[in-house]
Amino acid sequence: MKNQFLTAALFVGSFLGMAGVAGANDELQKAIDNPANWAIQTGDYANQRYSKLDQINKDNVGDMNVAWTFSTGVLRGHEGSPLVLGDTMFVHTPFPNNVYALDLNNDGAIKWIYEPKQNPDTIPVMCCDTVYRGVAVADGKVFLHQADTTLVALDAETGKVVWSVKNGDPAKGETNTATVLPVKDKVIVGISGGEFGVRGSVTAYNMSDGSLAWRGYSMGPDSDILVDPEKTTHLGKPVGKDSGLNTWQGDQWKIGGGTTWGWYSYDPEANLVYYGSGNPSTWNPTQRPGDNRWSMTIFARDVDTGMAKWVYQMTPHDEWDFDGINEMILSEQEVDGQMRKVLVHFDRNGFGYTMDRITGELLVAEKFDPAVNWATHVDKETGRPQVVAEFSTEQNGEDVNSEGICPAALGSKDQQPAAYSPDTKLHYVPTNHVCMDYEPFKVSYTAGQPYVGATLSMYPPKGETHMGNFIAWDAGTGKIKWSNPEQFSVWSGALATAGGVVFYGTLEGYLKAVDADTGKELYKFKTPSGIIGNVMTYEHGGKQFVGVLSGIGGWAGIGLAAGLTDPQAGLGAVGGYAALHNYTRLGGQLTVFAVN
Amino acid sequence: MKNQFLTAALFVGSFLGMAGVAGANDELQKAIDNPANWAIQTGDYANQRYSKLDQINKDNVGDMNVAWTFSTGVLRGHEGSPLVLGDTMFVHTPFPNNVYALDLNNDGAIKWIYEPKQNPDTIPVMCCDTVYRGVAVADGKVFLHQADTTLVALDAETGKVVWSVKNGDPAKGETNTATVLPVKDKVIVGISGGEFGVRGSVTAYNMSDGSLAWRGYSMGPDSDILVDPEKTTHLGKPVGKDSGLNTWQGDQWKIGGGTTWGWYSYDPEANLVYYGSGNPSTWNPTQRPGDNRWSMTIFARDVDTGMAKWVYQMTPHDEWDFDGINEMILSEQEVDGQMRKVLVHFDRNGFGYTMDRITGELLVAEKFDPAVNWATHVDKETGRPQVVAEFSTEQNGEDVNSEGICPAALGSKDQQPAAYSPDTKLHYVPTNHVCMDYEPFKVSYTAGQPYVGATLSMYPPKGETHMGNFIAWDAGTGKIKWSNPEQFSVWSGALATAGGVVFYGTLEGYLKAVDADTGKELYKFKTPSGIIGNVMTYEHGGKQFVGVLSGIGGWAGIGLAAGLTDPQAGLGAVGGYAALHNYTRLGGQLTVFAVN
Repeated sequence: MKNQFLTAALFVGSFLGMAGVAGANDELQKAIDNPANWAIQTGDYANQRYSKLDQINKDNVGDMNVAWTFSTGVLRGHEGSPLVLGDTMFVHTPFPNNVYALDLNNDGAIKWIYEPKQNPDTIPVMCCDTVYRGVAVADGKVFLHQADTTLVALDAETGKVVWSVKNGDPAKGETNTATVLPVKDKVIVGISGGEFGVRGSVTAYNMSDGSLAWRGYSMGPDSDILVDPEKTTHLGKPVGKDSGLNTWQGDQWKIGGGTTWGWYSYDPEANLVYYGSGNPSTWNPTQRPGDNRWSMTIFARDVDTGMAKWVYQMTPHDEWDFDGINEMILSEQEVDGQMRKVLVHFDRNGFGYTMDRITGELLVAEKFDPAVNWATHVDKETGRPQVVAEFSTEQNGEDVNSEGICPAALGSKDQQPAAYSPDTKLHYVPTNHVCMDYEPFKVSYTAGQPYVGATLSMYPPKGETHMGNFIAWDAGTGKIKWSNPEQFSVWSGALATAGGVVFYGTLEGYLKAVDADTGKELYKFKTPSGIIGNVMTYEHGGKQFVGVLSGIGGWAGIGLAAGLTDPQAGLGAVGGYAALHNYTRLGGQLTVFAVN
Repeated sequence: MKNQFLTAALFVGSFLGMAGVAGANDELQKAIDNPANWAIQTGDYANQRYSKLDQINKDNVGDMNVAWTFSTGVLRGHEGSPLVLGDTMFVHTPFPNNVYALDLNNDGAIKWIYEPKQNPDTIPVMCCDTVYRGVAVADGKVFLHQADTTLVALDAETGKVVWSVKNGDPAKGETNTATVLPVKDKVIVGISGGEFGVRGSVTAYNMSDGSLAWRGYSMGPDSDILVDPEKTTHLGKPVGKDSGLNTWQGDQWKIGGGTTWGWYSYDPEANLVYYGSGNPSTWNPTQRPGDNRWSMTIFARDVDTGMAKWVYQMTPHDEWDFDGINEMILSEQEVDGQMRKVLVHFDRNGFGYTMDRITGELLVAEKFDPAVNWATHVDKETGRPQVVAEFSTEQNGEDVNSEGICPAALGSKDQQPAAYSPDTKLHYVPTNHVCMDYEPFKVSYTAGQPYVGATLSMYPPKGETHMGNFIAWDAGTGKIKWSNPEQFSVWSGALATAGGVVFYGTLEGYLKAVDADTGKELYKFKTPSGIIGNVMTYEHGGKQFVGVLSGIGGWAGIGLAAGLTDPQAGLGAVGGYAALHNYTRLGGQLTVFAVN
């Protein structure tokens, strides 16, 4: 069935693709290019999260004040950010995924509201809080990908539903937390559910009517995963036939994870979309021998057809839940004296990767947290991490508690996106500084039930008390330029600006501004709740504003968000974050700053 | 039974009273006298809501900025205000009535949390949103009067329960929304439930251990209502025997309302506590012939014994739900050329009353909203309003829709407290400018079930579009000095300061500062959600701060708070407030301001 509908879809897709390419994409590209807007969650297609606005700069950011605020009316974790296009701001919420269009000409008064009715049974199927990383706007439509995987296109002027389509089935554990990527005439969407044995896929829908364009799975037959055995490469070599099957035992690939809940980048010149796939299911490595391709993999796919140009698996046969879904930041970097078109990726596994984004060549792979101990290094030829036996949860075996693994399952960095400044040539990375004990156990699969197979506890590295760092990273050399310690993980997305300032939020609730060159703190403000949202900036009426959503939650804040009183309770222990109770409560607020 | 326990209680009460007077009261009085604190919800015992702080003043209030913020983690209507005593701020929430102690020396970090477990069945028994008007602090204890009427004393340093006592029974419709008045060695508490046929009472508990000191009902036998037929007066004349029975038919007084959910004032010199009682039950006047004493009544009771010195019934035989529970503001005013110790009260019925608070003499009774039409005037001799037949819902009869009555059931002003400045000698009053249609119908009583007996719809006065005014009132003459129109009711408590500035919040969410002399707007800021909280001020580290809770709700905001999509749904229609949907969403945030 899958093959048939894909074939049909590919045909429809390329047809509509040719017809519609110009319009929607040009318009969105223009909106992105205007620094007055924050037109897309990632700042731009390159995921640089950099703004050319410089009215707020190193010299005056210390004078910043709160300009206005807005309560979303929803509690729990607020990831993502508002968008601004012209005079309208679009604000989203976690489940139930409300969308508000606010009028910037009228003090943020509400132009329209969209409040989807979703079955609350979706909530317990969401792995790590009810987060949602925000809407996208293109072609006069607001694209909302609900927790229950309903993709809705709303009229951007009125909020009325133009079309909607169902991408997955929460009854099988399929949910959504990611934003969508509107690119050319398509809307590209991922799926969550790696803890429920979901088989990950990326799907492109046609922007005009929601019809399916193409779908590429992370594992399975070549026709499902949209690879060409000869042309699709892994570190320069063809992947060969059945690459998504032959590193799996039996039918495990059918419940194999590799979900796609992170960020998506797009290189218009190469016509490629970049993203990473998540952990193989289950978390118990003994139950799934083999490399488990293409979980934990960076994909470069053709936007029009979905065909993979190249792939790179960072963590073959994962033993630690090091999902590879973090963002791919596109830029040009000098590597070994040569300018390269690169993709930079800070993986959960603690390595910062710099790759040639056209060829898929691995240029740099270095630890971006000195605590990382599960692997000594990444072999540049094979691309394989050299695993340290002591920290191999498979070698230690089922029902054995492997202690002191760094990073913890939530990684040296999770989805919280880094920023890149073309001025300083540095990447600004919100990181976790957390280690764990990990005990895998046998688990059996039931559709829609948790399919985890490991227990965890998480804590700061031995002898340390802080659980996060905000770092500046040189992707050409793979070195940390400066590092600011933070008491908790930095779970907020960063923003870099032409003003020489970098912004991020903290789990206690501070918005911070630091000097892009030195990391020196220039400003901080305690917002209502812990920040796991991403900082954005826009200009309105000739004035620059900086905005961020507060609302503690997400994986790091799940203890607070879900009201767990037992610090060891819930999926993935949150012990080290229990102290958050001393700093903040649940919230859901937008705070907008300006220099008076 | 009631008589026995009251006799016993009175004995215990006066004994403990004598023993403990000095300690607790002196300490609290000292805390109130220090303008760095905001030690009691009402600002002081006189309910003036005036601060001697003047660092923020007419000249610089326009430069005010947000200093810090705190999310309470709870949505729905946030009434009342935080308290500040020394370095600690105490913040409360609506149901479930969490209490947070915040450390002002550490950016508002959380010192302790008290999260009561309350039966959610209490929520539907709460008439008009799940509001709570805040805690009190005295004798080293924080007094929390929960929605379910549990009065809890918490150790102010640790948040641990010292004692708790149950004041009522939600199964009978008895709930709480009011703060408590800590006075001398007692904690004085009221009760809600006028829409459930609750018989209102005021109860004094001994601060040390929560034992009952006295309880005075609003209606019933003299021994229940704590009046002396000969000594307790109504406009100078003894009330006579059975005054709480002989204006009721049969046993209706037992389910007669007169609840006590408003604010309490205290005159230390007179040793009197002042408060008002609410509507008689039901809202259908035909079902309860007579004046229904002492519903709708101002009480002056002896703090030690509870005995009433005087009473004054403002709205005999209510036909409109004009509860008399609004605050009594104590001051000295020149009336007819004579300085008098007065009590000023802005009633739901639209009249502003100035009374001699020692003798209970009625000095002034004038309309504080020109829209008021249900009565032409108040007869100063008899104290009776002269009802206009057209707007008498009883004369029009059961099942008849009386149209165009002003004010609406929620009054020209509800509980949102006014402020008084001894500098300007003016009262600053947040008002409603709303009219209604009212159709009474027969209803029968079942314990714990709504016992309302009328349907309403509410809207702005004919030919007008705004639903509120913020006014300055001369209580000596009963005249409006100035009046600022507001689009919606002003449902926030006001604050007057020695800086010549008056603060209040709006339902759209603005905090506003106006010139105390002229009403001229000097500052406004859009907080995260609609404001129904009361503005407070404090000083810390030598700097003045202004704080207010946001969180739309309360009666005016119940449509949003309870998620009603039908503007006519719910208790007391909220039609006119439906437009609030265009301005704000639910919230629960503290915003603290300062001049940099």
